[in-house]
This record gives sequence, structure tokens and C-alpha cells, in this order.
Amino acid sequence: MKICRYNDNRLGLVKADQVFDVTSVLATLPAHRYPLPTVDPLIANLKTLMPAIEAAAQTVQPVPLSSVTLLSPIANPGKIVAAPVNYKAHLAESQADTQINFNTKVVEIQTIGLFLKATSSMIGAGESVKIRHPERRNDHEIELVVIIGKTADRVSEVDALDYVAGYCIGLDMTIRGPEERSMRKSLDSFTVFGPCFVTADELNDPSQLNMVLTVNDEPRQNANTRDLIIGVRQLISWASSFYTLHPGDVIMTGTPEGVAPVQPGDVIHARIDQIGEMHVHVSALAPKH
Amino acid sequence: MKICRYNDNRLGLVKADQVFDVTSVLATLPAHRYPLPTVDPLIANLKTLMPAIEAAAQTVQPVPLSSVTLLSPIANPGKIVAAPVNYKAHLAESQADTQINFNTKVVEIQTIGLFLKATSSMIGAGESVKIRHPERRNDHEIELVVIIGKTADRVSEVDALDYVAGYCIGLDMTIRGPEERSMRKSLDSFTVFGPCFVTADELNDPSQLNMVLTVNDEPRQNANTRDLIIGVRQLISWASSFYTLHPGDVIMTGTPEGVAPVQPGDVIHARIDQIGEMHVHVSALAPKH
Repeated sequence: MKICRYNDNRLGLVKADQVFDVTSVLATLPAHRYPLPTVDPLIANLKTLMPAIEAAAQTVQPVPLSSVTLLSPIANPGKIVAAPVNYKAHLAESQADTQINFNTKVVEIQTIGLFLKATSSMIGAGESVKIRHPERRNDHEIELVVIIGKTADRVSEVDALDYVAGYCIGLDMTIRGPEERSMRKSLDSFTVFGPCFVTADELNDPSQLNMVLTVNDEPRQNANTRDLIIGVRQLISWASSFYTLHPGDVIMTGTPEGVAPVQPGDVIHARIDQIGEMHVHVSALAPKH
Repeated sequence: MKICRYNDNRLGLVKADQVFDVTSVLATLPAHRYPLPTVDPLIANLKTLMPAIEAAAQTVQPVPLSSVTLLSPIANPGKIVAAPVNYKAHLAESQADTQINFNTKVVEIQTIGLFLKATSSMIGAGESVKIRHPERRNDHEIELVVIIGKTADRVSEVDALDYVAGYCIGLDMTIRGPEERSMRKSLDSFTVFGPCFVTADELNDPSQLNMVLTVNDEPRQNANTRDLIIGVRQLISWASSFYTLHPGDVIMTGTPEGVAPVQPGDVIHARIDQIGEMHVHVSALAPKH
């Protein structure tokens, strides 16, 4: 099943580039005042909702996916965990290019560990990446994103995929510079999720997925998740050895080689096997009034 | 006004070590299903709720603050921003002590920037810090915590305090090691907020506050926020130049010198002028079943 969010917080079931409005199923979720739950309510209830989503889709006429404004398919991630330098060829390019490494040593992922991105940086494919600091280098990074489906505390690599709700494409937009990653990668609009998420029952092997990113139709990144240094199972196990992963938390698995700058006016196209593709526009951040 | 959360998500008004149960005011907050708001509903509505909180307290008998189990006074922070090495004497001890710096260069805050902590790491003073990796060094760090009250996007230092809802004490618990801070400081229970938060109308100058931390009554940290390298106004302005701060987001302002390890069985006592004090127990993380 492929699920998207669009327009004014509509929920959609995606089939063959058509979107069926299944927002009505959300009325069955519990209401909350304060404190709010710290899990994503849709993801936490996904297994229960899937039959209702399928049934709701039977009752409506679809519209083309290209006609809607896509929001992040995950609305309420508790945390966005991300893996740095997790492809060997990207490690090599990062170590070689001072515009990427800013004259600091690029430490291997096994040592530097995972980092966090602010959930406030998240947008969908239909919103645009806003360049806030045009005087610095702002790079695209395509990544396979894992969406956690149930509470994962110290889980083994063998069991790790049992904790996955689904997958989507991620753009880990990045300012280059000396600051820790959790700051350089957390600017508003610097985490793009889309176009939809595909449930784990439909994508059961994340270890053989081609991914391609172009900017204005120029090839930039082209890789396969088989070249991850630390694979999806290991990432889940490792992250959950430090902190509990909750339903709706996501893990961005790292970007391959080919990272490069974008400018306002650029259009990023990203595609990952079995998930889909998205066009994301880059624009300048409006001046503050 | 001093506000706490306690027991089974009760809301309390604290006066002279007594707690008045004002949970009833929360019924006036709007209910949400999905997507959930990305602001803390109490903080976002605090100004409106304050008269109702005061009124509700008139109708109930208080109980001693010492008789309740304190939760984090902020329930739904969108992000926890934190300032590394933000006191000169702590920078010096970090540069000198290889058990703190792990043979990596301790870079100054102006260069390394701010980092993020996972919101899932947050607990209150009445919950205990759980040591998950006893084989590594686990340190206490007392900090003044700023709670953002309204949306802050590229705000000036001059205006910065207008965006503050209140303050609380924070413990930025930390595993020492080579990993980026956003991982080493995000273990479950590694962010303690408490005992309550004091609203900004009652604490209008955060730049002259004494803070003291002891472990098992032994003095460990003793400092004053006047020695912050980057003060509260600057931190808000700087953070908001990278990403928008939302109501309920917090900024942990950094810890002074005297960081040192804790072990299961230890009791941390932390006090900051005009906010209050809290005892926090340290225990071992239970084995996974």
C-alpha cells in the first residue's frame, strides 16, 4: 500500500499515479488535548487502519497524483535519526573535497554515530526547499528513509525489519560548514519526505534498491542500497541500543556519492525503486518582514 | 507563576512548596486527532490560560510538592536545542581531560554550533535517570533551560527575551565518547527537566542566576549564568537564524565546569536561583525481557 498526505492535510491511497481520498478513516483515531501522544497516530494505528483505507478508496473517484500538493507522508515523527557518511564512495568524496569536509576530519560512521535532524525541518515533495543562507554551500542528499512502526528498544539485527512500518524517499538537505550535523541539516525545509510511503508488506527487502537524483535533469546521484556501509537492519539495531524508537520515528539511512550544491530555481528529481519519484523545487527564503 | 506536571499527567500551580491541582483548565484546550499540532499546546496557550490557572488554584486544597511524582514540566517540546561548551571554565576542563574529550579536539561553540537532543530522552525530576551503558562514562550537566513561548524566526538579540515563555532546570546527561552529541546525549531519560517551570514574567533576567549541582551531597558544579560564553538572548537569536523556534521548543543553555560521572544509586541535587531545586535518582536500566 502506498499512502500520501496532500493539500489541506488530506490522506490519500496511491495506486498507479492516482490518489484516492481516504481522509475519512482518520475520524476513527482517538482525539487528544494535552499532553499529546509522542508517537505518530497514523503509523501507530496503521495495521488496524489499512483495511479501512482500502475500503474507503472503493467509495471515491481518484485524482491524478500530479494534481495534488504533496505534504510529508509522515506527519508527526518523534525523532528524525540520520546516518552520516554511510556509503563508501561518499565517504571517499567527503574526505577528498574540502568544500564538503570544511577541513575537518570526516570520521567514519562506526565512530561518529548517528545524528538527529529537527522535526521542524520536515516538508513534503510539493513544498519547496528554501535556501536561508545562500552565501554558504547547500547540498542535496538523497536517502532511503525507514519509518518505524512499533516501539523498538534494543532490538537485534535479525528482528529489526519487524519494526518497520514502511519506507519513503528522503532529501537530507545540508549546509556545508564546521557546525555539528544536527544544526547544519535542521534548517526549515531541509528534510524532504515523499512522495508517499510504501508499507513494509509491499517492500520487504530494502537492501537492493536503486536510487537516482538529478538536478535540472543533470545526473548527480545514482546508487543502490546494497552499498550501504551499515544496512537497514543494523541501523535499527544500533539506534535502538542508544534510545527507544517509537512509531513514526524515522531513520534516514545515509546518502551515496554525488552530493552537490543547489540554488534557488533548481528542480531536484529523486527516485527510489519500489517507492516512487518526486520533483522538489528549490527557492530562496523570503526576507523577514 | 510556577507550573509543574506530576503523577498521572496532572497540571499543578506551585506556591511555597505546595501544589494546587489545576488540571481542570486543560479541558479548554482544543482536541486533535491527526495530524497533531507541532507546538506544545499548553505553552502555545499559556498567556490565555494563566488567569484560569490562578482561578482554579483558589478552588482546591494544595498538597506538598514533595509528595508528588514530578514529570517534565514541558510535555511536548518540538525540539530540544542545546549549547555545547558554553562556559569558559567547562571549555577548559573539556580541552584538558581526555576522559571528557576522548582525544578529539573540543571545538568552541561559535564554530561547532548548537546541537539537538531527542525529545524521547526527556523525563521529569520524579523519574530516574537510567544508565544504559554502564561500561562508559555517564556525566551530569546542569543547565538553565529556556522555554520558547512564541514562533521565533530570525529574531534579534534585542527582542529575543520577548519569545520566552519561561525557564526550568535541565540535566543534560551525557555519555562520553567519539559520537556526535546528538547521539551521546539522547538516551532515554538523559534529558531531565524540572522541578517546574517559572514563567518569564516572574524571572525577567536570566543572566545572573546561580546554579549548584551536588551528587550524594558532594559539590560538583557551582556557577552563575553571567559566565555563559553565549548568553540567552544571543542563543535565541542564533538558533532562530538557522531554524524557526516554535512554542514549547527549548534551549538548553550549556553546562558550567565540574561535570563528572554518576552511577546507579546516586542522587543528583540541582538548584537554580528563582526556579527551584530537584532531586533526581540514578538507576540501572532494567535488562530487556
